Amino acid sequence: MAEKARKSRVRFRPHFKTHQSAEVGEWFRYFGVTSITVSSLSMAEYFADYRWNDITVAFPVNLRQTELMKRLAARIRLNVLVLDEETVEALDELLDTGVGVWIKIDTGYGRTGIRWDRGKDVVSLARRIEESKHLSFKGLLTHTGQSYHVHSKEKRAELFSETARVLGALRDQLADAGIDEGEISVGDTPGTTAVERFEGVDEVRPGNFVFFDVQQYHLGSCTEDEIAMAVACPVVALHPERGEMVLYGGAVHLSAQAEEHPDGGKMYGYVVPLKGEQQASWCRIDPASCVRMVSQEHGVVRCSPDLLASTEVADLVAVLPVHSCLSEDLIDDAMDTAGRRIMKGRF
Amino acid sequence: MAEKARKSRVRFRPHFKTHQSAEVGEWFRYFGVTSITVSSLSMAEYFADYRWNDITVAFPVNLRQTELMKRLAARIRLNVLVLDEETVEALDELLDTGVGVWIKIDTGYGRTGIRWDRGKDVVSLARRIEESKHLSFKGLLTHTGQSYHVHSKEKRAELFSETARVLGALRDQLADAGIDEGEISVGDTPGTTAVERFEGVDEVRPGNFVFFDVQQYHLGSCTEDEIAMAVACPVVALHPERGEMVLYGGAVHLSAQAEEHPDGGKMYGYVVPLKGEQQASWCRIDPASCVRMVSQEHGVVRCSPDLLASTEVADLVAVLPVHSCLSEDLIDDAMDTAGRRIMKGRF
Repeated sequence: MAEKARKSRVRFRPHFKTHQSAEVGEWFRYFGVTSITVSSLSMAEYFADYRWNDITVAFPVNLRQTELMKRLAARIRLNVLVLDEETVEALDELLDTGVGVWIKIDTGYGRTGIRWDRGKDVVSLARRIEESKHLSFKGLLTHTGQSYHVHSKEKRAELFSETARVLGALRDQLADAGIDEGEISVGDTPGTTAVERFEGVDEVRPGNFVFFDVQQYHLGSCTEDEIAMAVACPVVALHPERGEMVLYGGAVHLSAQAEEHPDGGKMYGYVVPLKGEQQASWCRIDPASCVRMVSQEHGVVRCSPDLLASTEVADLVAVLPVHSCLSEDLIDDAMDTAGRRIMKGRF
Repeated sequence: MAEKARKSRVRFRPHFKTHQSAEVGEWFRYFGVTSITVSSLSMAEYFADYRWNDITVAFPVNLRQTELMKRLAARIRLNVLVLDEETVEALDELLDTGVGVWIKIDTGYGRTGIRWDRGKDVVSLARRIEESKHLSFKGLLTHTGQSYHVHSKEKRAELFSETARVLGALRDQLADAGIDEGEISVGDTPGTTAVERFEGVDEVRPGNFVFFDVQQYHLGSCTEDEIAMAVACPVVALHPERGEMVLYGGAVHLSAQAEEHPDGGKMYGYVVPLKGEQQASWCRIDPASCVRMVSQEHGVVRCSPDLLASTEVADLVAVLPVHSCLSEDLIDDAMDTAGRRIMKGRF
């Protein structure tokens, strides 16, 4: 991802909400990364403590956290997201140091942002930001989350280009109104993995790609080998009579986010044996073995005959989770594939 | 629940995984509660620190945590769950003080436990426990989780009775084999709220009833007024053009557990205005206002016109969550309806 950004001459500002780890953050420095994205001010504060000093909080400003925002703005280059004039006015009133401001644009996902077809609103908001004392206008930012439901790589690439085109047209409207400085920032993993080059944008903010997960694997955003995160779960019960086993690994470890199994029905992750001396690596996916139900602490696994025959109570197995970001948020202890402990934040 | 247990002359051993709070735990003492249930050894340790000294960990023994188990067994009356002889043998080998052991029975939920129709296995396991040095046989324990899908109160009451009958028959088999001491322990909130008296059992372990939630409300286990837990979420964006607003309240706050909306479609909680001087109480449910989509930090709310008209960015609103146990696990800061901070554990 870093290499693709470098070749495309766009800024790479990876989203650190996926790993939430100062140590994994360090890996990014080897690839020249100096600017990052996070999803909350408290996560920004955590990474600021680890010498990250150019951080975008890619979430609409929460005006109930302005004290934390002020503290951070005094320490680092802080960028935030806005979508209405009330927030801009409140921010300008409350802040006493500079903060960068992106306008959040809804390019079709329908979650939040000013809709891409409301150019006048965007111009008016950008102007209001330019007129403010403490805010500097950074540009137009979107999250093309609809790409998570587009199962063709070609169509995801088209969506990436279309998003860049739509934001480019909005930027032209800004330029026509005398506002020239805005950049274009896009972010989703399915889109940024689908294209060969990042064209028509100034910044990319993918996050999930660092680990990927079953959702991305099913979507075709990654290969199985690129899934780089698993939850190690103790086996607490075997039920050979129904071809199942039970893990100490439920909704409070994996999250309750379900995914359609290729053969139908819900699933919450693939289950594979661990391997290696440290038990810190894992075997290949067999779609026959997956978590088919979670309650608070239990995960019920439908097992292949092989997995069932080779597993005993108290063994650890690996669950490749549906959504690595949510599992990482729930899990506090991590290790790398050499068995070394990885330091994580807790939010 | 305490009153019903007292009248029925059964032990009330509430499940504390729902609230995970030493302070809420204190409320139970006023009702004479002295024995509790938790879902993990770390939760047991937390409550042991707050003078709870009779604790059942209602989860199959995780043999990878025997050091913690030994530490706890030395401090309190600890009870655990088993369902196979290998675990009993390993435990007996590892422990050096007494631990109470319940046999986990699957009475039809299909999650874990020895199936109710395998009487011989139950007798053989109970005998193995009786022969052990450090384990004392407590009885037969089940979680009738299938009750969460039974929408008639009458049928849930029937399920409760049927469960008691099935476990009673198993106990008779134990008695015939010369094993007389076993009690019967049952636990689910939908079942324990459906019956007037607890008949045919010695112990009840409901947990969710302390707060209830939307799932229980839809099921008919509680009235709206009995939902006693809400997540206060800041409003970060208004989208009047589509009748929606966006909360700082997503899957990492509410959990990703979805529930069917009465009008169809998925929902993740009802959204109601807060009220009172401390903003620590909330208004009545209007089914038109609910969280219809969550991502990591965002909750997208479909709003009634009233809610939308009366809400501004930076307001707090209350989300009555689908599953209070999962939301409580995710939320660290709590207050009561008088606005006083409530101390919580973190697991």
